[in-house]
Amino acid sequence: MQVFSVIMAGGGGTRFWPLSRINKPKQILNISGNDVLINETIKRYEKIIPYENTFIVTIESQKKILEEVLLADVPKRNILVEPVARNTAPCILYAAMNIYIKYGDAVMCVFPSDHYITNVERFRFILCNALKLAMNTGKLVTIGIKPTFPSTGYGYIKFAQKTDHTDFFEVLEFIEKPDFKHAKMYFDSGSYLWNSGIFVWKVSVILENFRRFLPRLYEHAEILLKYIGTQQEKEVLNKVYPQLQNISIDHGILERSNEIIVLPGDFGWNDVGSWDTLGNILPSDENGNIVKGDFIGIDTKNCIIYGNDKFIATIGIDNMIIVNTEDALLVCSKERAQDVKKLVNLLKKQNKIELL
Amino acid sequence: MQVFSVIMAGGGGTRFWPLSRINKPKQILNISGNDVLINETIKRYEKIIPYENTFIVTIESQKKILEEVLLADVPKRNILVEPVARNTAPCILYAAMNIYIKYGDAVMCVFPSDHYITNVERFRFILCNALKLAMNTGKLVTIGIKPTFPSTGYGYIKFAQKTDHTDFFEVLEFIEKPDFKHAKMYFDSGSYLWNSGIFVWKVSVILENFRRFLPRLYEHAEILLKYIGTQQEKEVLNKVYPQLQNISIDHGILERSNEIIVLPGDFGWNDVGSWDTLGNILPSDENGNIVKGDFIGIDTKNCIIYGNDKFIATIGIDNMIIVNTEDALLVCSKERAQDVKKLVNLLKKQNKIELL
Repeated sequence: MQVFSVIMAGGGGTRFWPLSRINKPKQILNISGNDVLINETIKRYEKIIPYENTFIVTIESQKKILEEVLLADVPKRNILVEPVARNTAPCILYAAMNIYIKYGDAVMCVFPSDHYITNVERFRFILCNALKLAMNTGKLVTIGIKPTFPSTGYGYIKFAQKTDHTDFFEVLEFIEKPDFKHAKMYFDSGSYLWNSGIFVWKVSVILENFRRFLPRLYEHAEILLKYIGTQQEKEVLNKVYPQLQNISIDHGILERSNEIIVLPGDFGWNDVGSWDTLGNILPSDENGNIVKGDFIGIDTKNCIIYGNDKFIATIGIDNMIIVNTEDALLVCSKERAQDVKKLVNLLKKQNKIELL
Repeated sequence: MQVFSVIMAGGGGTRFWPLSRINKPKQILNISGNDVLINETIKRYEKIIPYENTFIVTIESQKKILEEVLLADVPKRNILVEPVARNTAPCILYAAMNIYIKYGDAVMCVFPSDHYITNVERFRFILCNALKLAMNTGKLVTIGIKPTFPSTGYGYIKFAQKTDHTDFFEVLEFIEKPDFKHAKMYFDSGSYLWNSGIFVWKVSVILENFRRFLPRLYEHAEILLKYIGTQQEKEVLNKVYPQLQNISIDHGILERSNEIIVLPGDFGWNDVGSWDTLGNILPSDENGNIVKGDFIGIDTKNCIIYGNDKFIATIGIDNMIIVNTEDALLVCSKERAQDVKKLVNLLKKQNKIELL
């Protein structure tokens, strides 16, 4: 049975402003210094999933820049474009239909496009296990992340403790981002994993789950099966897609199904959610500063200095984020990194289009 | 008797880096938003000293840019260029000789080029008094500044208390920048003024003082009297000037003479010594921020945001200085504003010539 990858790459990544922009989202930023995040996502499954079996779902405004940066081994025809941004359920359904029509039943892996994983070897080992499980059990398989702190920024997966010696667990519950009290409880209990958004299942199985748990969505989309790969595909898609239910795969299927198993992942996962997480990816100097660009710091500690070709000097600062791009400068306290999103919303409100 | 102004404009102003540079010193920066500091210095004595009676002493590397920004009413021929930067004594002597040769005896006022004064009317009133005093008494007159806090950044002038009702005092002592303990003592005593570097005297009187207190310097320079205004002036100046004693007017004459009187100045004087002093010149917004340029701040207080045409956003910061120029960015804690000088020295050491 062939294996395919579906990478969801329509996100905006506003929290990496001013580096990330509407038309230059996080997944096409080279944050690690090695390659853009989406290419790192693809290279991560090298030798497990053929590059040419990669499908990417994105939105129209990002298609062009994506084509420019994408690994040459990924066929351009495999870039699926949503006419409008919907949620993850329609996106995964459309990708599943594509694979089904073009290749028949197969195993498909769903990956977010903009995460970072430190221990790639370990990730590959667990991904192989997930593939085997999905193939052999016919269940919905997800890879959960062993929590390293009581995060309020991620969804949690509660799993069933058991006595056998297999390395996977039955999923009891998907839980949305909790408050700190609950996060602490989940973290302490040892029975919860973070929801990474990595899913592995057979195409036939997920289609069956759509029919069962999201019948209205499935029926609306079913007509696409006739047109995928034809000249009329885009036209029909433009008509059908905006009508589809705006719902996440978590809400729509995962929270309803009881045929889900989870593999704990301990491979240094990072969702690169905001500037302050850069410390988990990039090495820091002897003062704890993470520096890109031409920089001199006097008494400068634990800062993130992300420059372009312009010289940056700092004196007497700590725990700050400084990001300098061609047309904008951000100076932000590290503990307020989440509020970059707030700032972008403010820019939207003020209609500063050139900065979005 | 004619009145002349001599503006000393050879300084570098490293503490306004990255806005100020070797060839773009503080005096030609438009820091107030009205005009460059040197033009503000000139306009300040409008109707008291004719603009065309303005002499400016500068160094070769600053001549061109000075000519570009200078008020059109100031004759270009009145820009005197030091072949090498010496200290204030040679500079004042050369200017005094120029006036003496071209116009005979006169009153000359010496002004720093890069200070800021809030209450111009009050300044003019005191300047007029100083002119009268210099003319009528034949003494060396200086305008001292009433201290507003125990500064360790300025020299002090100790004056003699007296019982008559005139508004000037005999100078007892010139004192270099003190430590805080002494500054506090001076401030509390009420018998000290800050040394503003503003001097008023007759040309004949200051020349006599040079002969008396700096005879070696005067003798070396005396040959210039023959060549000022001739075709050979530059050639002779280039030979003579580098030989002249490197000494300040304070050390060389003022500290030695006992014929000095001081007028207390209370006109909102500011030496614009570093970025943090900008608050004394520019108005701040409701959050205490002083802002130049396109800016959005979230929870940003008491900052100096000095931008160019690039957008600046800040989140969760206070008491910071942010200066963004074409080729460099400075982010500095406000209380470390003095250390910008240190930074510039570091740039020199690292031979980053393009940033100096």
